Amino acid sequence: MNVSYKNLTATRAFATLKQLEPTPHLSTLLTPERIRSCSIPMGGGLTYNYAAKRFDSRVLDALQKLADEQQVIEKYRSLLNGEIMNTGEKRMVLHHLLRGQLGKDIYYQGKNLREFYRKEQERFYSFAEGVHQGKIRGSTGKPFTQIVQIGIGGSDLGPRALYLALKNLKEVEGQLWMKAFFLSNVDPDDASEVLSQVDPETTLFILVSKSGTTQETLTNEAFVLKRLEGLKDRGMVPKKHIVAVTSETSPMAKSSEYLEAFFIDDFIGGRYSSTSAVGGVVLSLAFGKETFEELLEGAHEEDVRALEPNILQNASLLDALLGVYERNVLGYPCTAILPYSQALFRFPAHLQQLDMESNGKRVNRFGDPIDYPTGPVVFGEPGTNGQHSFYQLLHQGTDIVPLQFIGFLRSQRGEDIDYQGSTSQQKLNANLAAQITAFARGKESADHNREFPGNRPSSLIYGDQLTARALGALLAHYENKVMFQGFIWNINSFDQEGVQLGKTLASAALAGSKEDSVLSAYSEILGGK
Amino acid sequence: MNVSYKNLTATRAFATLKQLEPTPHLSTLLTPERIRSCSIPMGGGLTYNYAAKRFDSRVLDALQKLADEQQVIEKYRSLLNGEIMNTGEKRMVLHHLLRGQLGKDIYYQGKNLREFYRKEQERFYSFAEGVHQGKIRGSTGKPFTQIVQIGIGGSDLGPRALYLALKNLKEVEGQLWMKAFFLSNVDPDDASEVLSQVDPETTLFILVSKSGTTQETLTNEAFVLKRLEGLKDRGMVPKKHIVAVTSETSPMAKSSEYLEAFFIDDFIGGRYSSTSAVGGVVLSLAFGKETFEELLEGAHEEDVRALEPNILQNASLLDALLGVYERNVLGYPCTAILPYSQALFRFPAHLQQLDMESNGKRVNRFGDPIDYPTGPVVFGEPGTNGQHSFYQLLHQGTDIVPLQFIGFLRSQRGEDIDYQGSTSQQKLNANLAAQITAFARGKESADHNREFPGNRPSSLIYGDQLTARALGALLAHYENKVMFQGFIWNINSFDQEGVQLGKTLASAALAGSKEDSVLSAYSEILGGK
Repeated sequence: MNVSYKNLTATRAFATLKQLEPTPHLSTLLTPERIRSCSIPMGGGLTYNYAAKRFDSRVLDALQKLADEQQVIEKYRSLLNGEIMNTGEKRMVLHHLLRGQLGKDIYYQGKNLREFYRKEQERFYSFAEGVHQGKIRGSTGKPFTQIVQIGIGGSDLGPRALYLALKNLKEVEGQLWMKAFFLSNVDPDDASEVLSQVDPETTLFILVSKSGTTQETLTNEAFVLKRLEGLKDRGMVPKKHIVAVTSETSPMAKSSEYLEAFFIDDFIGGRYSSTSAVGGVVLSLAFGKETFEELLEGAHEEDVRALEPNILQNASLLDALLGVYERNVLGYPCTAILPYSQALFRFPAHLQQLDMESNGKRVNRFGDPIDYPTGPVVFGEPGTNGQHSFYQLLHQGTDIVPLQFIGFLRSQRGEDIDYQGSTSQQKLNANLAAQITAFARGKESADHNREFPGNRPSSLIYGDQLTARALGALLAHYENKVMFQGFIWNINSFDQEGVQLGKTLASAALAGSKEDSVLSAYSEILGGK
Repeated sequence: MNVSYKNLTATRAFATLKQLEPTPHLSTLLTPERIRSCSIPMGGGLTYNYAAKRFDSRVLDALQKLADEQQVIEKYRSLLNGEIMNTGEKRMVLHHLLRGQLGKDIYYQGKNLREFYRKEQERFYSFAEGVHQGKIRGSTGKPFTQIVQIGIGGSDLGPRALYLALKNLKEVEGQLWMKAFFLSNVDPDDASEVLSQVDPETTLFILVSKSGTTQETLTNEAFVLKRLEGLKDRGMVPKKHIVAVTSETSPMAKSSEYLEAFFIDDFIGGRYSSTSAVGGVVLSLAFGKETFEELLEGAHEEDVRALEPNILQNASLLDALLGVYERNVLGYPCTAILPYSQALFRFPAHLQQLDMESNGKRVNRFGDPIDYPTGPVVFGEPGTNGQHSFYQLLHQGTDIVPLQFIGFLRSQRGEDIDYQGSTSQQKLNANLAAQITAFARGKESADHNREFPGNRPSSLIYGDQLTARALGALLAHYENKVMFQGFIWNINSFDQEGVQLGKTLASAALAGSKEDSVLSAYSEILGGK
């Protein structure tokens, strides 16, 4: 089938969608029957429930037509088959291949890339095993007992969120092999504080930069090296405490002094790299290879489900379409991620990057400016904490913010108490059920200050427990959702030209150039050169 | 002077503001001269620079008129003088009185409230001293060496953000008396994990709930008590490890079993309570009373400056006005807080509550619905991390998000390295200078994908170092900004009726009532009763 690319506003389905009469208030739409039926199974044992979204059958019909007209499944297949989907940087987009082969074999410079990714996985699995068994040790002879990952953006947010999401579960399961710390910010206080918490002799550092040129990361490496060099009299060989995760063509790859190097390539974008060595090395070291394999399986299951053309059987696609409907028809500029799970407390920060860096674009995939809104602002904090913070605005503010709830039936650590007739876990989920209901239905009151307008849409992803498999599926759900939205908006979700100008100007400021008088004036008040 | 309250859209100044011709592009407006002149000294040695905001002299004139017409300084004075500014709950609003007397003496039930607040301060200072000196000990005879604060919302986010903001500075200054942990979420994994990190015998718990009825907090208290009861054979008396921070009329205040109780009252709203015992007990225990006093001084300095009627000499007022201009004239629905300081990494979460819970309102202070946007969505992460995450959307997305930068000339821990000709601190601030410049000016390019539209407004608050005094001023700046915006929008920034409906429905869900079929259907899929 021929795949063609056109702007959202050039589709017939979008024109239809815009002309539909508004849907009835959610207080009318939302019934127990709808809650039971508006449900799609996902990978990893999760379920996507969209009952509290604002739609009726006409909207769903138009969204199915939009998916068909924008050929989103065909585009996903093109991506899986190795077409150049990152049109800005002229690269393939292959993060799905990290967790399974769903398209044809992909070769680059004579190399089968699925085999390459698998080989790297096997390499870091056996490295992790060597560390766990004490065969691979620090340069002063002590076993490695903790990890510090040095990276920023995609080399930090995803791996950090995943580590934190599983740490408690693995701890109670007796599979927390090593504790991990993360060092990202170029603020020297970040490096200084992280180093104050670890014994360098027993610490394994993972230096992550695809290009091998990331300023913050190399600076933090230098910070760490300086500290390690102070221990040379104990026989410390600083670089032998560092493993590199980078591309084979990067300057970092050329150093034979690192303890080890694991490779990714240009077809794994930073924010899509959590299931590559970028996340895999730290997660295998922390939890063992079985856990990382489970995570990949969960992600792969979700990747398979994303191939389904019927939007009522494809959670990430329907989620994407409803998001576009909310953004481009209902006109909502933001969306909130609200996990009712403390373990996911940094997951919104990862999704914030994934979504905003992918779809915060104002040109289409051909580089032509577009005239409709694309990616929304994404933010979030765990419930129940958010309830006591920004939910006031969500319930009674002047703008509507679509909400993405996440919940689990069971906790990770298994410790709980009965207090006033219910457990903490029951309270947590009662609050979740209550919030979805409250946002949708609202409440009338003669006192306007106690009135809740309702009609505030939300979705719910839920599962039995946040396991590695469920987490993999959750991660892939959002990756695929963002990809589908990019197809619908006809943008390139895989480059990030918007980060370049700041880098250029920062270099100029550091060079102390006075040519740019505005930059110099700011540098001056900030104590710069 | 008679103070009158009217809606924003009823003011002449707002009509003027809306009719102004658009300002020129920031690339034209932003000059070195403007950067040097658009600067207002703040408390705590900080400076507010608004050069990169979108305004010209006509806008500033209209904003001054708007401030005058809405009588914001008079309303602030009314608040300081103890008028009922929380019209919904019919309460005074007295958090400024925690750090100094700026209005007339305020009595409630015969009690001078400034004296009451000072007395509580003195009580928790001397309590902290007793703990530090080992005079006040755990029930098994061991000294207290760490703290766990149990609270949610305003009893968590502010104190946690302030603790984290000063921990590094105080550690290197040798004034980190006790490490603090925070327990907020009703998710049992939160309590279980926090408890896994501390030795109960040497832990002092601070239970914070103004009403003494907060479900999450009482549940977490029960969780902790259960754990402590397991140590009874060692002589553990659980409640003797807990101090309460609450109001004198709360059920918690009536328990004589707690080790100690410190009091606030109904005139200190949760999100404004960081400078009360809610923040003061934990901060005095962690860092000593001098640090908390410094924080109060910084806040008070900023409160004094907020009395200035000339908007060009009042940073929080001008910041408030420019925010209203961006929200109600330029139409921007969000704003981002971007501290170039790792120590402030949870400060945006506190400001998110402060702002969104205060001004996320759709009725005016009289309870009448209003027809203009109020509080924006607030989010943020530290730079440089955000640069590698969501800045793509900020630079090249289809919507404009006004940015609030924060930076410091010196780090807190003092440890730094020179790498490729500059220190980490220099790199951090070079990036900050570069981003402000890039957002304002943009960059033309024949390749639209590499084009930056610019004209994206930002402000900058900066200082020499993030000390307790600077932090107090920073905190008060935002509290006062939010208050001023509430006055301009004619809303009550001090209640939160929007949290009630969820509470009611959560209770119904926990009671297992089947009357509400929608709630029951959600409860069911979430494993509830």
